[in-house]
Amino acid sequence: MDLERERRRLLERDAEWALLGSRGDEIERILSYWTEDAVVYPPGLPAVSGKAAIRSYVQAALAVPGFRITWTTANATLSPDGRLGYLLGGNTIQQPGVDGELVTAHGRAVTIWRREGDGEWECAVDIWNGGATAT
Amino acid sequence: MDLERERRRLLERDAEWALLGSRGDEIERILSYWTEDAVVYPPGLPAVSGKAAIRSYVQAALAVPGFRITWTTANATLSPDGRLGYLLGGNTIQQPGVDGELVTAHGRAVTIWRREGDGEWECAVDIWNGGATAT
Repeated sequence: MDLERERRRLLERDAEWALLGSRGDEIERILSYWTEDAVVYPPGLPAVSGKAAIRSYVQAALAVPGFRITWTTANATLSPDGRLGYLLGGNTIQQPGVDGELVTAHGRAVTIWRREGDGEWECAVDIWNGGATAT
Repeated sequence: MDLERERRRLLERDAEWALLGSRGDEIERILSYWTEDAVVYPPGLPAVSGKAAIRSYVQAALAVPGFRITWTTANATLSPDGRLGYLLGGNTIQQPGVDGELVTAHGRAVTIWRREGDGEWECAVDIWNGGATAT
């Protein structure tokens, strides 16, 4: 197991996912990056547990006129066995505010990824929150 | 390496830390649970990176009259090699609101822990946010 290679693969997976997420038009491909038992914690909303619930959550988000998410990852850390890892980064979410005007929020994102055997990296935990610079 | 034993040790460490955190009177012991390079993402505040910055952040929080944090952990997941793990749980933070009255906020917490060799588990990443039930 080449840890540096796995680290690069994880960062590439995440970059592919970010591209798909920002386009927002291929929901099944977007969903394929989460584990079946993944949990997402959107700020201000209930936890979203499991792929079926995440599908509904993502469909609803992508259906909001003006919704767009982008993210970049600054840092990847893996367990020595290359089976568990986490990414630290930042995201930007644009969506209508209460008055209908588009609001842009900047957040800090933590994702935790698992890899079974020689399989692909999949995201098991997804949480973010806004910092002091949220606008 | 006994993975189930390490899982129990991690949960015990976290429970000890939660007890110290809720008491809030032994700052060096509280700080000893984070790695030197840990990062904390408090909602609405800048990221807090590294032990020195975390010391200042924790000192400031504990100095706020009425401040109290408690947390419980529902779930622990470890890498197969027992060197990286993460905990999912919930926290409750009580502190004065803008009008000075104590406000209680409930959050979902994700912590990521590392263990070097046969050392203790230490927390490297600490993030939480409020859910729909925050009051």
